[in-house]
Amino acid sequence: MERKNRRLFLNKEHELYLVEEAIPEPAENEVLIQIAANGICGSDIHFFHEGRLGNFVVDTPYVPGHEASGTIIKNGPSARRFPEGTRVVIEPGIPCGFCHFCKEGRYNLCPDVKFLSAPPIDGTFCDYVCVNENFVFPIPEKLSFEAAALAEPAAVAVHAVQRAEFRLGATGVVLGAGPIGLLVVQAFKAAGGGKVICVDIMQERLEKALLAGADEVIDSSQPGVSLENLGDVVFETAGNRLTTAQLFTVARPGGCAVQVGWPNGNHVEMNIADMIDKELTYKSVNRYANAFDTAVTWLSDGRIRSDVMITHTFSLEEAPEAFRWALENPRKTMKVIVKN
Amino acid sequence: MERKNRRLFLNKEHELYLVEEAIPEPAENEVLIQIAANGICGSDIHFFHEGRLGNFVVDTPYVPGHEASGTIIKNGPSARRFPEGTRVVIEPGIPCGFCHFCKEGRYNLCPDVKFLSAPPIDGTFCDYVCVNENFVFPIPEKLSFEAAALAEPAAVAVHAVQRAEFRLGATGVVLGAGPIGLLVVQAFKAAGGGKVICVDIMQERLEKALLAGADEVIDSSQPGVSLENLGDVVFETAGNRLTTAQLFTVARPGGCAVQVGWPNGNHVEMNIADMIDKELTYKSVNRYANAFDTAVTWLSDGRIRSDVMITHTFSLEEAPEAFRWALENPRKTMKVIVKN
Amino acid sequence: MERKNRRLFLNKEHELYLVEEAIPEPAENEVLIQIAANGICGSDIHFFHEGRLGNFVVDTPYVPGHEASGTIIKNGPSARRFPEGTRVVIEPGIPCGFCHFCKEGRYNLCPDVKFLSAPPIDGTFCDYVCVNENFVFPIPEKLSFEAAALAEPAAVAVHAVQRAEFRLGATGVVLGAGPIGLLVVQAFKAAGGGKVICVDIMQERLEKALLAGADEVIDSSQPGVSLENLGDVVFETAGNRLTTAQLFTVARPGGCAVQVGWPNGNHVEMNIADMIDKELTYKSVNRYANAFDTAVTWLSDGRIRSDVMITHTFSLEEAPEAFRWALENPRKTMKVIVKN
Amino acid sequence: MERKNRRLFLNKEHELYLVEEAIPEPAENEVLIQIAANGICGSDIHFFHEGRLGNFVVDTPYVPGHEASGTIIKNGPSARRFPEGTRVVIEPGIPCGFCHFCKEGRYNLCPDVKFLSAPPIDGTFCDYVCVNENFVFPIPEKLSFEAAALAEPAAVAVHAVQRAEFRLGATGVVLGAGPIGLLVVQAFKAAGGGKVICVDIMQERLEKALLAGADEVIDSSQPGVSLENLGDVVFETAGNRLTTAQLFTVARPGGCAVQVGWPNGNHVEMNIADMIDKELTYKSVNRYANAFDTAVTWLSDGRIRSDVMITHTFSLEEAPEAFRWALENPRKTMKVIVKN
Repeated sequence: MERKNRRLFLNKEHELYLVEEAIPEPAENEVLIQIAANGICGSDIHFFHEGRLGNFVVDTPYVPGHEASGTIIKNGPSARRFPEGTRVVIEPGIPCGFCHFCKEGRYNLCPDVKFLSAPPIDGTFCDYVCVNENFVFPIPEKLSFEAAALAEPAAVAVHAVQRAEFRLGATGVVLGAGPIGLLVVQAFKAAGGGKVICVDIMQERLEKALLAGADEVIDSSQPGVSLENLGDVVFETAGNRLTTAQLFTVARPGGCAVQVGWPNGNHVEMNIADMIDKELTYKSVNRYANAFDTAVTWLSDGRIRSDVMITHTFSLEEAPEAFRWALENPRKTMKVIVKN
Repeated sequence: MERKNRRLFLNKEHELYLVEEAIPEPAENEVLIQIAANGICGSDIHFFHEGRLGNFVVDTPYVPGHEASGTIIKNGPSARRFPEGTRVVIEPGIPCGFCHFCKEGRYNLCPDVKFLSAPPIDGTFCDYVCVNENFVFPIPEKLSFEAAALAEPAAVAVHAVQRAEFRLGATGVVLGAGPIGLLVVQAFKAAGGGKVICVDIMQERLEKALLAGADEVIDSSQPGVSLENLGDVVFETAGNRLTTAQLFTVARPGGCAVQVGWPNGNHVEMNIADMIDKELTYKSVNRYANAFDTAVTWLSDGRIRSDVMITHTFSLEEAPEAFRWALENPRKTMKVIVKN
Repeated sequence: MERKNRRLFLNKEHELYLVEEAIPEPAENEVLIQIAANGICGSDIHFFHEGRLGNFVVDTPYVPGHEASGTIIKNGPSARRFPEGTRVVIEPGIPCGFCHFCKEGRYNLCPDVKFLSAPPIDGTFCDYVCVNENFVFPIPEKLSFEAAALAEPAAVAVHAVQRAEFRLGATGVVLGAGPIGLLVVQAFKAAGGGKVICVDIMQERLEKALLAGADEVIDSSQPGVSLENLGDVVFETAGNRLTTAQLFTVARPGGCAVQVGWPNGNHVEMNIADMIDKELTYKSVNRYANAFDTAVTWLSDGRIRSDVMITHTFSLEEAPEAFRWALENPRKTMKVIVKN
Repeated sequence: MERKNRRLFLNKEHELYLVEEAIPEPAENEVLIQIAANGICGSDIHFFHEGRLGNFVVDTPYVPGHEASGTIIKNGPSARRFPEGTRVVIEPGIPCGFCHFCKEGRYNLCPDVKFLSAPPIDGTFCDYVCVNENFVFPIPEKLSFEAAALAEPAAVAVHAVQRAEFRLGATGVVLGAGPIGLLVVQAFKAAGGGKVICVDIMQERLEKALLAGADEVIDSSQPGVSLENLGDVVFETAGNRLTTAQLFTVARPGGCAVQVGWPNGNHVEMNIADMIDKELTYKSVNRYANAFDTAVTWLSDGRIRSDVMITHTFSLEEAPEAFRWALENPRKTMKVIVKN
């Protein structure tokens, strides 16, 4: 029976549709991967709904998706790191390897990085894709493909706690209980943090945060709630201007604020007096570098729980429906997985 | 009923005996603590059996013990950090606070540190003791006094992983499955480590290591076992010359070796070629600094398990017997607790 | 001949006047210092002119001054670190030594720090003062008392470069060419920085910056000047809202912004988009910790040049005139020294 | 006039001889460089005299040399970073760019690194050579080709001080006053170190160390010399078993020992008691990563002085004589340069 490569396209008319194409051939150093599962990222939804994100615009049809797991079914020329049949996750940003950012270990800042699913580069909502063998990571047998698809957003959380400065056992505050917030709650604990407090305004999400291991949750929409000096490390994961503006207030003296979310607008009025008085450190997070293997390790040993994260599953045929569900039900949805 | 202060003395004739004395008065900045439990440390046993350890000699009778928990029953003049009745553990080394080591945050290196139970300074095997209020740490209700008495050796493990250089998710190797080894296994995981491999030559201890969370154990007494390039971070906890000599071989390129144990003799022949070729980092650990609160946090949230650690419990009256048991049964014993 | 202790008071009527008092006696751990020289700090000027700074208010007369050098002429009880006759500089903030900030080496954040010249605590514009022996630092013979008085502002610059994250040889940008700016230019070079660019709007100050070792200066008042991505590390030393708002624009991707100055007002609108896109680090500086000995070393070996810094010298009798000069001639004045 | 490519070969009979060959063509991402000057490295001399070094053996004739400067005269396909005519130095170790060491910024540990002049890979004692454009660094006009040829050994020193852990202003000790020792003296100062003490047993070399900026020199061959607790950071640069064995004794409590030299033999008996008691850190240095640009910066601004380092200059025709001179006159020779 002939195998085909179904690929899910998104065009600028906000349409999602499958096209059958030939299976690609892996080039030098590439592996051909048969995709098993994809998570839908907030950015995929954003492109679907808005047609653009930052400087990236959906001009011509492209394939979304960059949270993918699957199986290596063919090694390209020179590729030799993994035997065929290896189950893997894909790190979707491929840097040049030789600029000064790459040489210093901060390859996420490489100006020539090629990121799967950043239009016009095609992503992973398809049956087969070719990727550089140095950017796939083997997964243990006990980790399902669906759970493994969380490795990409988990890598963001791992990078956030890598960037954060804190003493072991420090108290963490996570502003925002969405998918990234819940992953940061778990990654902060896994990285040696102590007590974690999660703050949001949706009760459904705060309940999820407790399941994810938060020691305490705060509904900041309630009157009289003060977050001042709440924790040693504060992570903004809501991508919200208000929570960003709170960061230096929430952090304790000597503490650290970490910007994980991307708030709308270029500028936010920050409390510089608090920043100085408390001698804080403020760090931002732009994707990740050297974080995927750790994400896989923590997903495998249960320190990051996929069961709390994955709320809905669809087939690749149902992908358009999956996108619409995620767009229309933020309150009910944590992570949506599309299985091939 | 009149309360008395029973104190356990050790003299240079290797005798342990209780003496009843008056309850002391807390001085400036001190709190009076009613002791609830003490762990027996390897160094206590060593003084009991050998009468000396390093430069410290048992000339005159002194009180051993420095792994203690209890309750604050009186605040001395100026002491104001904790209300009476607070359950606490004691950090037993009190530094000067103002030398350059203290000012730089490495107060364990303070040349004027006063360490409880380092002869001739009395320790905590007694009913009442006075301690500087800045070196006691409150414990949550759910943490028993016996479990809390583990905070001191756990602080050694916390300090070891604080000192270690490793990426989150790195693979750790712990040489030695004694009490400190098992605590390092758990602290390394708690601090963000990935897989942990524990190595020893006693099968009973390796089984304990598995209970403590080691992912893999290796009996290095078996023929043909190679530990070469086994992990990214290697902790020597056995206090053994052979395992110390192996450190640079066991560590992977770019990795870190941490000396937690104190091997006999001043010198060990180290594999400098491996050290250089792999560009390793080697760190030692001398007690701890800024580690007690984290030790309490991890004991409280179960990341360090007291049930695996505590194998035997005695009363203060039975303390001499407890010392003899620990001395004579290393294979059966992990941590012995003396309850008041 | 009877010696007297002249002390310079500032009252809330903005008056500066000398009062003769008895020479104080050093208490426990204190040394009695005969003051030789004092620098006038911007904060001294601010209290003189405004009567307040932040939460500190001139209610009752107090002695300003905290940039002082002199000679130990008497050791108090227990003080034993230096022989009488030792020439020293004074670190003017005395922390508690035992809170968690002190224990972690960040004693500048100690909530109980006593800072000389922060009203109502008296400072060092006087002939004799008593200070904790652990907060004085010996100076080599070749370093004059006047030059040594720069150790305090130099310690701010040392702390700024200690806090900054940068690779050796990185390019630095210093926004503001006032006294702290010029000290940061020199400290950044001394700490391993590469090229340094200094930015200001006063030509006189930029010329000073060149003398202080800046490789390039930019007059940002000129039309068409762009500071975008100018350097790897950017120090705000002007205490200005506009330069603070520029920090994330001036820093290169992967770089670090350091807030040394205190801008007016509590809030500044920061470019969060640049912060995230470039994955920057932002750090603030609140005085200093563990920086005085380094400041003395670099003043002694010429890496920080006092000749460029000191523009005017007055006697203690002329101190009121010195304050007025500094207040009225910011453009002509870098650092004013008052000699006893 | 036809240009030829003279190449200096070394064979296993210890013979050095020039061969004229065709000028090579730069491949993808490569630049063709016309060599201007080469320094002779100790390893070149070692291969010349011994025919081997570690695992590298001179089986077939190869071209030594890896401390080279020159001019880009042609860009290969895709090479676009520098215009032709750019004066550059060459970083001689080319890593794969994509293994986990490369991705983490420690590309010197890449198992697939290709190092120019490590037999059988040819080096830079020739007229023309092709190199990956990402491993050449432009040099400013004021820096001569001869001085620029020091960038490679200077990068070793830069990497040593990058690896070292020390507070700004710390006291450094450099064991060994050979070329690397003198470069470490200067790099340690440039990186923010304070006082530097250089130790050797040859008076001629200690005089050079003073010229290079050492504040103090010690002839350790003199009777009664104690180096105990001499400095905060200690660099072993002599490649000597005795100085390596001293490292933990020479370092002060809390300090750092750095192994820059490669002593003979695989094992050295180290003072573990000192290591533990002082809670030291010990780091080794294997070549360098991310150090070349800093080396060029510090050579350009005079923080590393070429005049002290370069003692002899020969032409490429005289290269065999230059090698013999360096081999036979270690006491008189610091760095020998061969000019094309």
